[in-house]
Amino acid sequence: MCGVFGIWGHSEAANIAYLGLHALQHRGQESAGIASTDGERLYAHRVMGLVQAGFQQEDLRQLRGEAAIGHVRYSTAGSSHLRNAQPLAVDYAHGSIALAHNGNLTNHEALRTELEAKGSIFQSGTDTETIVHCFARSHESTAEDRLVDALRKVEGAYSLVALTEKKLIAVRDPVGNRPLVLGTLTKGDRTMTVIASEPTSFDLIGAELVRDVAPGEMIVVDSAGIRSSFPFEARPRAMCLFEYVYFARPDAMVDGISVYNVRKALGRKLAQEHPIADGEEEAIVVPVPDSGVPSAIGYAEASGVPFQVGLIRSHYVGRTFIEPQETIRDFGVRLKLHPNRAALEGRRVVVVDDSIVRGTTSRKIVKMIREAGAREVHFRVASPPTKWPCFYGIATPTRQELIANTHNESALADYLAADSVGYLSLPSLVDAVRGEERNEQARRGGPTSDVPETASLRGFCHACFSGEYPIPIPRAAGDRHGLLKTIA
Amino acid sequence: MCGVFGIWGHSEAANIAYLGLHALQHRGQESAGIASTDGERLYAHRVMGLVQAGFQQEDLRQLRGEAAIGHVRYSTAGSSHLRNAQPLAVDYAHGSIALAHNGNLTNHEALRTELEAKGSIFQSGTDTETIVHCFARSHESTAEDRLVDALRKVEGAYSLVALTEKKLIAVRDPVGNRPLVLGTLTKGDRTMTVIASEPTSFDLIGAELVRDVAPGEMIVVDSAGIRSSFPFEARPRAMCLFEYVYFARPDAMVDGISVYNVRKALGRKLAQEHPIADGEEEAIVVPVPDSGVPSAIGYAEASGVPFQVGLIRSHYVGRTFIEPQETIRDFGVRLKLHPNRAALEGRRVVVVDDSIVRGTTSRKIVKMIREAGAREVHFRVASPPTKWPCFYGIATPTRQELIANTHNESALADYLAADSVGYLSLPSLVDAVRGEERNEQARRGGPTSDVPETASLRGFCHACFSGEYPIPIPRAAGDRHGLLKTIA
Amino acid sequence: MCGVFGIWGHSEAANIAYLGLHALQHRGQESAGIASTDGERLYAHRVMGLVQAGFQQEDLRQLRGEAAIGHVRYSTAGSSHLRNAQPLAVDYAHGSIALAHNGNLTNHEALRTELEAKGSIFQSGTDTETIVHCFARSHESTAEDRLVDALRKVEGAYSLVALTEKKLIAVRDPVGNRPLVLGTLTKGDRTMTVIASEPTSFDLIGAELVRDVAPGEMIVVDSAGIRSSFPFEARPRAMCLFEYVYFARPDAMVDGISVYNVRKALGRKLAQEHPIADGEEEAIVVPVPDSGVPSAIGYAEASGVPFQVGLIRSHYVGRTFIEPQETIRDFGVRLKLHPNRAALEGRRVVVVDDSIVRGTTSRKIVKMIREAGAREVHFRVASPPTKWPCFYGIATPTRQELIANTHNESALADYLAADSVGYLSLPSLVDAVRGEERNEQARRGGPTSDVPETASLRGFCHACFSGEYPIPIPRAAGDRHGLLKTIA
Amino acid sequence: MCGVFGIWGHSEAANIAYLGLHALQHRGQESAGIASTDGERLYAHRVMGLVQAGFQQEDLRQLRGEAAIGHVRYSTAGSSHLRNAQPLAVDYAHGSIALAHNGNLTNHEALRTELEAKGSIFQSGTDTETIVHCFARSHESTAEDRLVDALRKVEGAYSLVALTEKKLIAVRDPVGNRPLVLGTLTKGDRTMTVIASEPTSFDLIGAELVRDVAPGEMIVVDSAGIRSSFPFEARPRAMCLFEYVYFARPDAMVDGISVYNVRKALGRKLAQEHPIADGEEEAIVVPVPDSGVPSAIGYAEASGVPFQVGLIRSHYVGRTFIEPQETIRDFGVRLKLHPNRAALEGRRVVVVDDSIVRGTTSRKIVKMIREAGAREVHFRVASPPTKWPCFYGIATPTRQELIANTHNESALADYLAADSVGYLSLPSLVDAVRGEERNEQARRGGPTSDVPETASLRGFCHACFSGEYPIPIPRAAGDRHGLLKTIA
Repeated sequence: MCGVFGIWGHSEAANIAYLGLHALQHRGQESAGIASTDGERLYAHRVMGLVQAGFQQEDLRQLRGEAAIGHVRYSTAGSSHLRNAQPLAVDYAHGSIALAHNGNLTNHEALRTELEAKGSIFQSGTDTETIVHCFARSHESTAEDRLVDALRKVEGAYSLVALTEKKLIAVRDPVGNRPLVLGTLTKGDRTMTVIASEPTSFDLIGAELVRDVAPGEMIVVDSAGIRSSFPFEARPRAMCLFEYVYFARPDAMVDGISVYNVRKALGRKLAQEHPIADGEEEAIVVPVPDSGVPSAIGYAEASGVPFQVGLIRSHYVGRTFIEPQETIRDFGVRLKLHPNRAALEGRRVVVVDDSIVRGTTSRKIVKMIREAGAREVHFRVASPPTKWPCFYGIATPTRQELIANTHNESALADYLAADSVGYLSLPSLVDAVRGEERNEQARRGGPTSDVPETASLRGFCHACFSGEYPIPIPRAAGDRHGLLKTIA
Repeated sequence: MCGVFGIWGHSEAANIAYLGLHALQHRGQESAGIASTDGERLYAHRVMGLVQAGFQQEDLRQLRGEAAIGHVRYSTAGSSHLRNAQPLAVDYAHGSIALAHNGNLTNHEALRTELEAKGSIFQSGTDTETIVHCFARSHESTAEDRLVDALRKVEGAYSLVALTEKKLIAVRDPVGNRPLVLGTLTKGDRTMTVIASEPTSFDLIGAELVRDVAPGEMIVVDSAGIRSSFPFEARPRAMCLFEYVYFARPDAMVDGISVYNVRKALGRKLAQEHPIADGEEEAIVVPVPDSGVPSAIGYAEASGVPFQVGLIRSHYVGRTFIEPQETIRDFGVRLKLHPNRAALEGRRVVVVDDSIVRGTTSRKIVKMIREAGAREVHFRVASPPTKWPCFYGIATPTRQELIANTHNESALADYLAADSVGYLSLPSLVDAVRGEERNEQARRGGPTSDVPETASLRGFCHACFSGEYPIPIPRAAGDRHGLLKTIA
Repeated sequence: MCGVFGIWGHSEAANIAYLGLHALQHRGQESAGIASTDGERLYAHRVMGLVQAGFQQEDLRQLRGEAAIGHVRYSTAGSSHLRNAQPLAVDYAHGSIALAHNGNLTNHEALRTELEAKGSIFQSGTDTETIVHCFARSHESTAEDRLVDALRKVEGAYSLVALTEKKLIAVRDPVGNRPLVLGTLTKGDRTMTVIASEPTSFDLIGAELVRDVAPGEMIVVDSAGIRSSFPFEARPRAMCLFEYVYFARPDAMVDGISVYNVRKALGRKLAQEHPIADGEEEAIVVPVPDSGVPSAIGYAEASGVPFQVGLIRSHYVGRTFIEPQETIRDFGVRLKLHPNRAALEGRRVVVVDDSIVRGTTSRKIVKMIREAGAREVHFRVASPPTKWPCFYGIATPTRQELIANTHNESALADYLAADSVGYLSLPSLVDAVRGEERNEQARRGGPTSDVPETASLRGFCHACFSGEYPIPIPRAAGDRHGLLKTIA
Repeated sequence: MCGVFGIWGHSEAANIAYLGLHALQHRGQESAGIASTDGERLYAHRVMGLVQAGFQQEDLRQLRGEAAIGHVRYSTAGSSHLRNAQPLAVDYAHGSIALAHNGNLTNHEALRTELEAKGSIFQSGTDTETIVHCFARSHESTAEDRLVDALRKVEGAYSLVALTEKKLIAVRDPVGNRPLVLGTLTKGDRTMTVIASEPTSFDLIGAELVRDVAPGEMIVVDSAGIRSSFPFEARPRAMCLFEYVYFARPDAMVDGISVYNVRKALGRKLAQEHPIADGEEEAIVVPVPDSGVPSAIGYAEASGVPFQVGLIRSHYVGRTFIEPQETIRDFGVRLKLHPNRAALEGRRVVVVDDSIVRGTTSRKIVKMIREAGAREVHFRVASPPTKWPCFYGIATPTRQELIANTHNESALADYLAADSVGYLSLPSLVDAVRGEERNEQARRGGPTSDVPETASLRGFCHACFSGEYPIPIPRAAGDRHGLLKTIA
């Protein structure tokens, strides 16, 4: 997962991009970067770690010009190295281009082999560089046509922003797998265009959400204004459901739908599908903070079981911590989460989390809650079992490491040492998203979209839950990491 | 406010202290320090900022020995400089002593003048150094007697841990103004003594809470074992109420009472004292995260108004942030808190915060909530008006800056642009603490203490609310900061 | 100017390269880098600044394998950015290659335009990347044939070392403009090959100088052993004279000639060509340290005027220095050089420097010597007037900035406020180098080469003195800097 | 050894002190510090390492006011910790004082014990803190009288500058063991007073040397002007001879005598006392750079043997260097010194160094010169054998480690593997200093002091050569290090 940002026409474009990235920081903490243009040249700066830690005043000052794009990266393709940080910025025959990409290409290995055979040199280990090479080799004349030409060669998921000396370009892939939104920022009588992965970027900088960029849409901004086009063949929409489950910040609107409201709805449906047996005396609902909070509120609302803060999240956890040589049990999770004994002791505890991937942390949480005196621990997951790896932009473990592949609910309860485990069903997840879509449409006073009450799963990517991949996966994709032979 | 920690008898004492400080980090982020002893010498290391950021493996390695004390500092007396960081560690005629102090002395200016007149040199600007000088000049022979001698000269609040080459000493002042707890850590058949400001330190390191150190109690640990004594004249207890309101971590037990339960009770009483008028349709309860959360849960429980996450707290805020030259409105608060429009829009919002000091942040929060579409904003404060400065260890502004001095509830509502403002009454605050004390006693199965249902305010320090100072304040104390003439 | 290094077959290859670069540090302090191979992959690390400051133990540990190359850079083509640091390491269709280059290509702009038109993307602003692209596009099958193919396309000066997963390759350009030497390092019964810009690298690591790499020679080292070939068309030799004058470390042997002995000889000839008039009483010879020392010794020997330390060089000068707002006169030079009044006062001072480029520092030196009480100041330069820019690897200012273009000796004396100025003649410079070559041959007991006593200038590049460029310079070369449009 | 600096009346006092310290950096690289006053308060900043590396613009900006003192430290008493850095700055009953001290007290242990018994607390491990405590306990009323009172209690060597809110005070101990000079800096019609260990500080900041501060003299500068007094009982002068031999920068004047000229004279006398036998063919004189250079010039002048650069000193050596695991022979010295084979090969080499302490480096140098082909190596030392530790401010090893104690010239030649070793005699050293004093007096046109041609050794401290200590040494002084029991 990554976050992208773009701004056009602001006298302090790089600083605005820096703030925009801060509000997308939850989408990636491995590296951050900004590229800007003053109309003549591109300027770029990339750092490992958080945008706030890495960028100094002087760095922003040197990112000259009134347009900028930015990127925060959560390692997907390509290893953790500065040279894999984005935006990628290169020179080609007719100028320069910088690219910030959220998503993952599925055919980039084949493309890379083909490009290298023609003499192309790869500097990074990212799939994004493939787009740049196709762009550089295109015979089209304008930057947008070259970019379309390049993107027609690639398969996979992408929400991207590109910057040339004279243009800002935003593109969302034809299936709309990753989110991308368009906003405006008004200063006096000047209106500027802003692009971002989520509208969470807009609040901090005083911008307003206009709308989502549509699947397959390209938006070009330059001195002549802003233009929209749909240069790709239409494809069925396949928006990532995990954005609603976990990735997006709860205050975000993704494709017009409130993430917070969806998550509460997931909790409500979860309470219906997996209530706790034997009455509700002494029971409490406890979220795994912070991602489980909205679903826990929903669960509490629907079940009548009171919501309590049973786990306190530490605000002081950073990367490394010096542990004594005599190992402390469950050290990692204890650093981050503190059990609130006063709330837990003697209770029947319903723990609500957004999802379970490997299950190791969940197991430690259950143990911690039991040691704090809980009488029973019921684990509730506000999404379906995660059984399949993602090839479209999320760093997931292999199938073998996904615990939902190897453990059914009962086996998982044993592994977690929980009294029961309950996952939300996939239809309920889709229903919840669709329901909130209708609610939102009703709230806005517009016509409600014609979405069936209990519908098919169309319109969403649920590959990680169902194994149905809306974009084909090449056979060798399991080996897609570690492409780069040179390690710098 | 500060946090102190001590451990005796652990082969990795400094590392345990480091972890203990991490779990007290909420009590002070300005500086951190650890002193240790190997039985022959003291070793000390102090850093500005967070313990995790400042201490390296090598630093811990050089803090040799099996006993250590630690300190995290939130600037109170003395300005923000490394030399004001604690533990203070010095040589005197008969050895060395290190001191970590939570609290503030009220007569230290007079003592300092007296000591300087006798030729003492002050290296730091902290009141704690006064204790050290009195200690060094004492004619008593043992370290504990010297410390008692020194502490008999001082007035004010202190929970402190001291370390000599051969002893760990913990003392809580006679009125018990600041918390201090005793715990044990068991490894195999070895039992070690642990001292800390809050039992939050114990969970991470695997220690268990034994009991609170009593007001006026001194605990001495050395190779001969652990001894308790009460060397000071008895005084009426005056435990700080603000520890329950704000300082302590919600999972802490302070003087045997759950901070989390107290805060929920405050919210429940607040709902009774300050309900919102005109029915509850469309109303929601929104905490100011994270400190307002437990009281908001209590308010929601008592009022039936649903609890919602209306403000998202950022996990990525550090010290400095580069703001554009064109100022962004309410930049500081927007960085830290993100309004959740989906929850707020069209609602009657009851905002619950733990306290209001200057009111400036509260005002921005109200504005932010309104701009996110709230129909009404009712501000509820889970503590009485803060009208008086604290002289016992909390950095508070002057009376003129405390907004509760200059604005009654109605004027404050105007200032905040809130539809209404409601503070909890002081009797309700005291009742809530006493009520939870009884609940806790009942839960533990012991006899309930004879505390009247609606009691006098005895037993607590409520000076910041009432202006009744349990420890006398010298006239010149208003100038107590900036004592040190040399600025290093 | 830059320095290159290569080692094959050493179990701690990266560490040896690190030490080798330290001993070449005088050839470039802007950036440093090392690439290594473990036979399967290349590893690379590059830093801005000195090798010693930038490389940590951990960096070396990650540079795995038994072969490594290194580079220290003194900015020539391409601006001061990490991405211009070398070795360049890239992936191409058949593997990876890393390249470290000393010298400058004259036709790289045309080549770059051509390559970009074919779709190549440039990541750095260095001419070296052009070689890499030609290499990647070559249709030859072995790495050495590809490199020859690429180098046949380029014009200019290069001494380079390349590293693939399986081979170390060293090449010196056909005119032999930049130095390059071959050495061996013996450990037990193992003999390893070492390549370096100067044999100064060899002493520290315990290697021995075998011979200079010949102009146009390619040396390939791999598991099969070491092979030499001459794959380029023969060209007249044109070794850079400035290496003898200034660049090489005085203890270096360059093309078999002692740099120290050459510099002393320059001083002796300078004393003959430009003695000081009116007897030698009260006269002293003072070098500008450290580069002027050997010539000053030579001048003193030939003239009988005593050699004195009149200027003390500071050992504590780094990059930045905080100057007061009230400007201090000649601050920069005063930081670096301290006049020794006891030696200078009342004297007729012959200042000997290796060369004059802009003249600004020389002027401050003369002033400083006068202010220290010198009666007369005679400036003597141990090389001819520097009138022409270098296009082969030395960062020189434009012709307008070279003071020898705008001032003859008499005008320069006025500008410097010196009593007289004397440059060495070009024939004397060439004679000195040839003379030491003969001396060296005699010393080694071999046959003396047939070099005429006062010879033509053949065999050397003296373009910066004479404007006769041995390798053609394209018209646009004046604009050769700042090629890269993207600034990262 | 340390360096001190003071300035009074300059609008950028701290910045001037910073530059002054830079020019005293050769006197200490362990730590650096500056204290300033704005007339109301003292400000202080201290750093480990070089002044240039540690001080930032912001640090200087916060050192407010028009007077400042500075200190560079080469560890003598007290270990290597920031808290031992100077200037020491403390508060006492009547204000604040900062102190920068060059030298070492001999009775500070006894004084410290006495002060601690009275209740004084020591924060640092330096003898300088003893002065501060005595100052704080003095019953005198003015700062200068308190300082005199304190200094009358101490025994030992000191050149110190002190700063109070209102005064700059400089004192040189009664025997004048360490150098101290007085200068003036003129800006427009304003004349400012400057104090420094050596006049090397003056050139960079544009100040002029007025005179040496006399032994036992106190200089006080305040708003009323500058006053001199001699408050101590007169004692025979005992200026440190090692300042002339090694410590002072060669361009310094120490007690009116040129250090450079003394060192050349030492070389000339050394040539007379220890010529090389068997004629001078093929012989060369090679200094150990940089400290041996002036004496080598003198030796060459007197002997007629040519001066050559046989060892090149590296400019790129810093603190740590990563050495391979396979040890490189004589790694440390090879990093710093490069043998110049062209100069050394086949020669009879006279190596001239200023002194020999442990002999380990000298041994490596001889080896290195032999390996570079020298036929013979004759080691010449421009000072007498160093046989006794210094108790007055120089960090010397114990007697057992001083090689001159355990090896006579012949045994030392064996140890060094040199063909011969020759030390200068102590009378010649004293003669050389006295001779240059007369020369200087003659040059200045004043009357020559009545110093006998071959005189007694009176007037100088030659304890390290003769064991005759001019200031008594207490028995326990061998244990004088590591006083502080607390290690921070």
